[in-house]
Amino acid sequence: MSLNISRPTLLLDQEKMEQNIEKMLRIAQEGDVRLVPHFKTHQSREIGEYFNQKGIEAITVSSVQMAEYFASHGWKDITIAFPFNRLETQAINNLSTRGVNLKLLITDRGTVDYLAHHLTGNADVLIEIDTGYGRSGVLDTAIEEIRDIASAVESESKLNLYGLYCHLGNTYQAENTSEIKKLWSHTIATLNEIREKLSMTSPELKIRMGDTPGCSLVTDFEGVDEIGPGNFVFYDLVMNYLDVCTEDEIAVAVACPVVAKHEDCLELVIHGGAVHFSKDHLFDEHEQKFFGEIVILEEGGWSSIIEGARLRSVSQEHGILKVSQELFGTLEIGDVIGVLPIHSCLTANLLGSYTTMTGQVFEHM
Amino acid sequence: MSLNISRPTLLLDQEKMEQNIEKMLRIAQEGDVRLVPHFKTHQSREIGEYFNQKGIEAITVSSVQMAEYFASHGWKDITIAFPFNRLETQAINNLSTRGVNLKLLITDRGTVDYLAHHLTGNADVLIEIDTGYGRSGVLDTAIEEIRDIASAVESESKLNLYGLYCHLGNTYQAENTSEIKKLWSHTIATLNEIREKLSMTSPELKIRMGDTPGCSLVTDFEGVDEIGPGNFVFYDLVMNYLDVCTEDEIAVAVACPVVAKHEDCLELVIHGGAVHFSKDHLFDEHEQKFFGEIVILEEGGWSSIIEGARLRSVSQEHGILKVSQELFGTLEIGDVIGVLPIHSCLTANLLGSYTTMTGQVFEHM
Repeated sequence: MSLNISRPTLLLDQEKMEQNIEKMLRIAQEGDVRLVPHFKTHQSREIGEYFNQKGIEAITVSSVQMAEYFASHGWKDITIAFPFNRLETQAINNLSTRGVNLKLLITDRGTVDYLAHHLTGNADVLIEIDTGYGRSGVLDTAIEEIRDIASAVESESKLNLYGLYCHLGNTYQAENTSEIKKLWSHTIATLNEIREKLSMTSPELKIRMGDTPGCSLVTDFEGVDEIGPGNFVFYDLVMNYLDVCTEDEIAVAVACPVVAKHEDCLELVIHGGAVHFSKDHLFDEHEQKFFGEIVILEEGGWSSIIEGARLRSVSQEHGILKVSQELFGTLEIGDVIGVLPIHSCLTANLLGSYTTMTGQVFEHM
Repeated sequence: MSLNISRPTLLLDQEKMEQNIEKMLRIAQEGDVRLVPHFKTHQSREIGEYFNQKGIEAITVSSVQMAEYFASHGWKDITIAFPFNRLETQAINNLSTRGVNLKLLITDRGTVDYLAHHLTGNADVLIEIDTGYGRSGVLDTAIEEIRDIASAVESESKLNLYGLYCHLGNTYQAENTSEIKKLWSHTIATLNEIREKLSMTSPELKIRMGDTPGCSLVTDFEGVDEIGPGNFVFYDLVMNYLDVCTEDEIAVAVACPVVAKHEDCLELVIHGGAVHFSKDHLFDEHEQKFFGEIVILEEGGWSSIIEGARLRSVSQEHGILKVSQELFGTLEIGDVIGVLPIHSCLTANLLGSYTTMTGQVFEHM
């Protein structure tokens, strides 16, 4: 590899990323849904620009800070897909003043009243619905509460009730792809029942769904208007283990220097630890934890996953690879190995910038 | 609390931190060992200055990048407590040129030869010994290998064999404090045997040990010359659960806005997730995972840990607190709650700066 790597470095295979973006655009087009991509995974100005060149003008983020970052890079239509935080009202008003069209997530009636009193500009509102993930949102069964929120929004001139939002995060814990599809079709039905119940007073509600597993696998988007996946831009091992992507679609790898070899236990010590990978892990076929899979870095990219080699433990800066006798023999202290991350969002957040295979550096918020 | 918090913010109780530093200085003085504090936990210029005011001139870091950061803030005696990474030789040479006295960790003979050929300045060398932690270092039983490394170092004029280094990280997995003390006394004996075996050719070797659990608890430092703990500056829940510190000694908490309440399951949604806490966790008395304990923020500090309330799950930005009926009733959307971190090093690394209880902001590398 011709890149000059001396420290843990997040490599971005731009070609894979572009193919992932193309694929999701195609899925949206074929499913007749609007793609409002989530930018929480990459958090990058340059990667955002790539989406923009493909015609994307409306985006999703997961914090007000991220909205500020992308607004400062020219984005004007931003959904903040996190329950509205009253303490950030000033920041929200500043974004409005700068001409950003905001879509806010609401999960309770009190917040509607709060917004009515404290917003200085206008905003679109999505009611977040919890159809079983159990993280945030109004329970899908609490129809009176949803109706109450909807009518409160409708009665406020500053607020426009844009639609219903659901992040079906339980797809990440699904046993297999058919369970993911089942979860989606159940949720689509539920959201449409709610929409139907609100249709007398709110006839034009959009339904937006968010998770990458569902958006990648579902083919029938009947009843969905918009999708907001994020992770698909890079994918990762969690998605690969769920059969949501192939390993060839994983677009990021962490380049890690090998600093020690322990022949007695076939372990390699790398510079690459919890401050690079977080502590997210998966379990292998023997129920053993691991923190990444190993690839060999090559000119312009990396190999497929090396069998019998995994990142087995991480402390703050150290990573321990357990490898096969064969791999052990081919790697030397001073070499650089690639590690595919368990969770690309957290890894990108920790590494803080991207190096493309041609040596360009893309920023991370 | 009078601080103006609107987003997840790492709070630093300076008084607790100062007491923690004073305590470790006292331990070192009473144990007649030199404190060479590890700065990987705080990674902060301002906190470093506090140590300097207390007479500390030699420090420990865990990466070359961290050495560069502290060198740029005037530190001149820096141990890089990570196996020497050959790919960073240029950066090491630059530090030498700037007048930094470096102590490097060596774990294999080949790296001594490499240093001899590529170092432009001089460096002290510590041989890292693995007495059972199993992360990095030469096995304590590999006495011929240790002897070989030692004599190779002694024969190079650029290199000075300074001593033996051991990070006894297995103390973090100890069942109780007496096990920690046992691990230490075994390791001290082992390191002194090795020192004795090298004494004919290397008569002045120092022994340095690193972990916070041992340094906090051990009273008999006979046979140890230097200690290099880091986590003690803040401590955290891992240390508290190990009975290494009291909860009153935990000097950092993350202030997190409450953004939603779910009465049916007594849950609160906070802004505070894996990008703030990492995914480090502990298990409670019912073997249930948790990601932090809850405190009430008060003027100038925070309460003791609230019983029956824990940070139960984290996704990228969301945290879910399970709380008692009583606490649920007292907290409202728009309030700010405090969360004591499982692992302060990773939390500080993610939050990126410190806000003291008087509103000063300290930087993080």
